[in-house]
Amino acid sequence: MEYRRVKDQEIYDDSSQKDVESLSGRTLSSANTSGLSSAGGAKGKSSWKLKSVVTLALTLLTSSQAILIVWSKRAGKYEYSVTTANFSVEALKCLLSLAALFRTWNRHGVTDDNRLTTSFDEVGVYPIPAVLYMVKNLLQYYIFAYVDAPAYQILKNLNIISTGVLYRIILKKKLSEIQWAAFVLLCAGCTTAQLNPSSDHVLQTPIQGWMMAIVMALLSGFAGVYTEAIIKKRPSRNINVQNFWLYIFGVIFNLVAICVQDYDAVMNKGFFHGYSFITVLMILNHALSGIAVSMVMKYADNIVKVYSTSVAMLLTAVVSVFLFSFHLSLAFFLGSTVVSVSVYLHSVGKLQPQK
Amino acid sequence: MEYRRVKDQEIYDDSSQKDVESLSGRTLSSANTSGLSSAGGAKGKSSWKLKSVVTLALTLLTSSQAILIVWSKRAGKYEYSVTTANFSVEALKCLLSLAALFRTWNRHGVTDDNRLTTSFDEVGVYPIPAVLYMVKNLLQYYIFAYVDAPAYQILKNLNIISTGVLYRIILKKKLSEIQWAAFVLLCAGCTTAQLNPSSDHVLQTPIQGWMMAIVMALLSGFAGVYTEAIIKKRPSRNINVQNFWLYIFGVIFNLVAICVQDYDAVMNKGFFHGYSFITVLMILNHALSGIAVSMVMKYADNIVKVYSTSVAMLLTAVVSVFLFSFHLSLAFFLGSTVVSVSVYLHSVGKLQPQK
Repeated sequence: MEYRRVKDQEIYDDSSQKDVESLSGRTLSSANTSGLSSAGGAKGKSSWKLKSVVTLALTLLTSSQAILIVWSKRAGKYEYSVTTANFSVEALKCLLSLAALFRTWNRHGVTDDNRLTTSFDEVGVYPIPAVLYMVKNLLQYYIFAYVDAPAYQILKNLNIISTGVLYRIILKKKLSEIQWAAFVLLCAGCTTAQLNPSSDHVLQTPIQGWMMAIVMALLSGFAGVYTEAIIKKRPSRNINVQNFWLYIFGVIFNLVAICVQDYDAVMNKGFFHGYSFITVLMILNHALSGIAVSMVMKYADNIVKVYSTSVAMLLTAVVSVFLFSFHLSLAFFLGSTVVSVSVYLHSVGKLQPQK
Repeated sequence: MEYRRVKDQEIYDDSSQKDVESLSGRTLSSANTSGLSSAGGAKGKSSWKLKSVVTLALTLLTSSQAILIVWSKRAGKYEYSVTTANFSVEALKCLLSLAALFRTWNRHGVTDDNRLTTSFDEVGVYPIPAVLYMVKNLLQYYIFAYVDAPAYQILKNLNIISTGVLYRIILKKKLSEIQWAAFVLLCAGCTTAQLNPSSDHVLQTPIQGWMMAIVMALLSGFAGVYTEAIIKKRPSRNINVQNFWLYIFGVIFNLVAICVQDYDAVMNKGFFHGYSFITVLMILNHALSGIAVSMVMKYADNIVKVYSTSVAMLLTAVVSVFLFSFHLSLAFFLGSTVVSVSVYLHSVGKLQPQK
């Protein structure tokens, strides 16, 4: 139960951080790719360093996220309301972005790229990915009519494929044949690593379950890729300004969610009822992970994000062996091998002209 | 029990067909590679076609082999002696090689390359791989003290890695980095496809079990690679002559085995006691598979052989779904995906200068 709550929180959190910048749907891909190439040329080695740092941060934060979840499960149940936790995450992200902005203004003064004021043209499409995630989260309640929980964990790996396909179609960025092969391996490897005796249930999934899983994967992949397009459309725009506008929608959506779902609980027991040290740690971790995802979208891309979170999943399991005397299966070792080879192939398989 | 008998037969059969031609250990690799390159240059497209045909034949024969095993298990127990079956396989291979030779002599006359007479220099090393296999088969009786049968099935996939490593070291043939990655994937994919609820036992294998499994994989890999070296050392020598000398050792070894193990049974019940239609089919299949392995060694290599038998393993499972309403696991689909990607990567990853 505790796990389900945190999982929902994760998904919601994911949605709120993936809002947007000004962009009319029609001109999305062309506008974005031209923006990208000019930015790519201007950067270079320091961009590569930044990319590595944000990717490493995302990997470590994501893996510690899962460990916190296990830890919280061990420590017992917490009766906090998920909506207030989500609100706190979004609010914290906003505050951190503002703090970073104040520092920038003090150091370099206010410029066109780092001023907080914005136009509807810039900020108008921010809620689109949030809406996509909302639809996906709604579908999630219905898919459990057709699919059990372990099978759903397996089907979620379809996200990897959908992200790759939509990345190619929407952002018009090419992957080499070897990188495509690596992406298929990443999906197969992650699924293998998660195999358990009840995973075979997924093969009994009815066609409705498959259709819904595919639609959910497409919605989630589209939201991710759309966020990348929006953030990268203005490569010179300060990331903290972009983040602020991204997260402010999260604050608003979660405020509405509190009013709808937990108004009575908050009024009677207080906003922070049931919070513990571990709740605070999880909120801090979610906020930092959210910022890391934005950074990866800005300085790297969705493909890097998928690799990063996949490797984090494996790291979590390995760390859990030491922390919780977790048992690793042969399937986990095989899956990890395949994921490692996939990471290697992705890096050696880079298209030559893109260098 | 029936399955074990057939498995032993397979292993023994494998050993006898991997005998050898004249070659002193010291000059093995250099002599062989120079022979190879001149042969490679002389052939071309027709060699590629021949390579494809023998590979396809090996794949189909190997997959039907496993199906015959399942079929024989369904049909009940056969009380034939394994040694007489092995002898029959070797004798049949000799006869088929001789028949092919007669046809060649009638068509093209007797030349230096297709004459049956040979020198000790040519034929002296033929028994070496047979001895290696014998040691491996002896070890097999001891490894079950440390490893159970499902774990042994998993550990046998170490053969894939050992063949690749010894192919590189002994034959001095290079694989590209991508082909190495593909080979690791082949091993991981085959193992994944074979996963079952009791596979995790392999993780409890004691160090002695691992050591023995590794030694057995090295012996088997070495015998395969050594056979390839011997067959390829004389590229212009007729393959049927090479096969005849290869198989005649199998006939002799199996005759000794009959005398040691089954002398009484054969004397009392007759040579072909307990033979059924399916026994005859299995002998025929083993003989043809043995010839296909020699052909693959001559016109392709050990790497192709490993891919061919791995793909055959997957084919068998798929065909078994229709023939025996076999149940395919999710692990099987994931493993098959990884093996398919591996086959693809092996072909796109070819080293450019070797073309």
